Amino acid sequence: MRRLAPAALLVALAGLAAPAGPQPAAPADPLPSWNDTGPKKAITAFVAKVTDDRSPDFVPVPERIAAFDNDGTLWCEQPMYTQVVFAVDRVKALAPQHPEWKDKQPFKAMLDGDREKMAAAGERGWVEVITATHTGMTVTGFEATVTGWIKTAEHPRFKRPYTACVYQPMLELLAYLRANGFKTFVVSGGTADFMRPWTEAAYGIPPEQVVGTTFRTKYAVPDGTPAIVIEPHVDLVDDGPGKPVGIARLIGRRPVMAFGNSDGDFEMLEYTTAGKGARFGLIVHHTDAVREYAYDRKSPVGHLDRALDAAPKRGWVVTSMKDDWKTIFPPAPAPK
Amino acid sequence: MRRLAPAALLVALAGLAAPAGPQPAAPADPLPSWNDTGPKKAITAFVAKVTDDRSPDFVPVPERIAAFDNDGTLWCEQPMYTQVVFAVDRVKALAPQHPEWKDKQPFKAMLDGDREKMAAAGERGWVEVITATHTGMTVTGFEATVTGWIKTAEHPRFKRPYTACVYQPMLELLAYLRANGFKTFVVSGGTADFMRPWTEAAYGIPPEQVVGTTFRTKYAVPDGTPAIVIEPHVDLVDDGPGKPVGIARLIGRRPVMAFGNSDGDFEMLEYTTAGKGARFGLIVHHTDAVREYAYDRKSPVGHLDRALDAAPKRGWVVTSMKDDWKTIFPPAPAPK
Repeated sequence: MRRLAPAALLVALAGLAAPAGPQPAAPADPLPSWNDTGPKKAITAFVAKVTDDRSPDFVPVPERIAAFDNDGTLWCEQPMYTQVVFAVDRVKALAPQHPEWKDKQPFKAMLDGDREKMAAAGERGWVEVITATHTGMTVTGFEATVTGWIKTAEHPRFKRPYTACVYQPMLELLAYLRANGFKTFVVSGGTADFMRPWTEAAYGIPPEQVVGTTFRTKYAVPDGTPAIVIEPHVDLVDDGPGKPVGIARLIGRRPVMAFGNSDGDFEMLEYTTAGKGARFGLIVHHTDAVREYAYDRKSPVGHLDRALDAAPKRGWVVTSMKDDWKTIFPPAPAPK
Repeated sequence: MRRLAPAALLVALAGLAAPAGPQPAAPADPLPSWNDTGPKKAITAFVAKVTDDRSPDFVPVPERIAAFDNDGTLWCEQPMYTQVVFAVDRVKALAPQHPEWKDKQPFKAMLDGDREKMAAAGERGWVEVITATHTGMTVTGFEATVTGWIKTAEHPRFKRPYTACVYQPMLELLAYLRANGFKTFVVSGGTADFMRPWTEAAYGIPPEQVVGTTFRTKYAVPDGTPAIVIEPHVDLVDDGPGKPVGIARLIGRRPVMAFGNSDGDFEMLEYTTAGKGARFGLIVHHTDAVREYAYDRKSPVGHLDRALDAAPKRGWVVTSMKDDWKTIFPPAPAPK
């Protein structure tokens, strides 16, 4: 047996403890679907400085709150907001119990598939439709309806479930932020009850981190079974100036990062980036008519005008989907 | 230099990597301030079965939600709810700007320290007081006031800060549940704005996991600085049937475990334990006049009557502070 000096053996054993072989490579790119352009660099530089405890911009883990708009920021919102598609399907499903809808706008337009007349109904018509289709049942009952619908409904152009029309670069961003100690929230104009049944599977965001438009609810024990009943009164419209209100109500502190794509996100971006210390705002700009859609100032869906003008002077990063994203959607889901 | 056979050296070095000495003992008791009586056994048996993935009662981590009442469940609520003490101090601080309060109840009673007249003011008087002292400012401004107050105010009997009048057994329970994958929430009749500034330090519960009574708020940019302004209108009274409503609004799913101490927690306990699968409800019964307070059916503060009667038939565990808790409060804080 060859005699080894203890010192040499220590070195050899150290090699066992920390296995020899190829040295660890540089960490894998956490945002592989982002091109190496400005937005990706801005995101990674920001995360590096707020997570470095020697940096003056360091943010303690509990304060690392990131708020994401949903429609047009995390998933596709064209040619119609998904929740509008859902509402149309609900109107069709409930029509037999509502013969009066055949002659009443905007229900008639929805039954006829007349998108122009649907749009003409405006906010008042829309409130009437969601009140008729989203209230008067228990939260649990509504959740079951959404869960059933979202499994089967398909995007008309991409021919895949809406939950597969989420943006791959944003999924990577969500995971990257969580890996860096951020808590990720959805803050959407859509209703909370419509999103909560599927955000955990689609984004890794649990129901308690979903801020959305809400109806008033009441607690009831109608037949000995306690339930939350959704009442036909809008409680909070979580859009525009309602977004900071929803954030204050549910999160209780100002986000460090906010992500949006339309003027409905203006106030959320403003509120977030006006906070003390390092803050980050980003706008997803829909510039890719080939792979997705191209729209901004003139679009009724995802209208982006004021926030786009404000971005340069407020330091909000504008991401061009065409130029900054390598891919738009995750790989096609397995056929059903 | 002494020559060592490599094999002997390996053993010696292995000792360095995994230090020799006493073998690891049985895991330390996670609830050392609980006596080995029924409640502790019920808690640990429940946690064991819902965290065992071979058990029919297994609950996946994301669904492990535990809701805790605050006043009387996590901290002392006698002889007055801490938020009432805060409100009295605010009335005194603001009195110079409100000369009319000298002749107006219940403000006059608060300024005079007349607790009987204060109690006589009832809910209407109380709403007037919290509206005068808790609204009309920004969330940030109010937070600063609470933070300053909670640092200096002292419990009249225990002569320590209110945040040191928290229950040691409940702190251990919160930590134990979190170590077992539970997300812990405060669900209190107190206002969210009053609790959020200190729950993280006191309980390890961040602001976004605090459900409480709320006022309506609005987003405003009065002087170029975006802020959330608290308006003088109650939005949600998170007490009694308001607790399940607050839970549905902020958490968006039914808790698996709920902890309370008064009839104001009845509906939260009922809603929680009516859920499918394994559920757990517990009532903290104040039975210890020597170490804390003894009260239940006849107490105006922390009134416990209906829930105490319901406990046996609904399977809610009743914990007697006197019999089941080894200690009440954490060790005395260092003198200031």
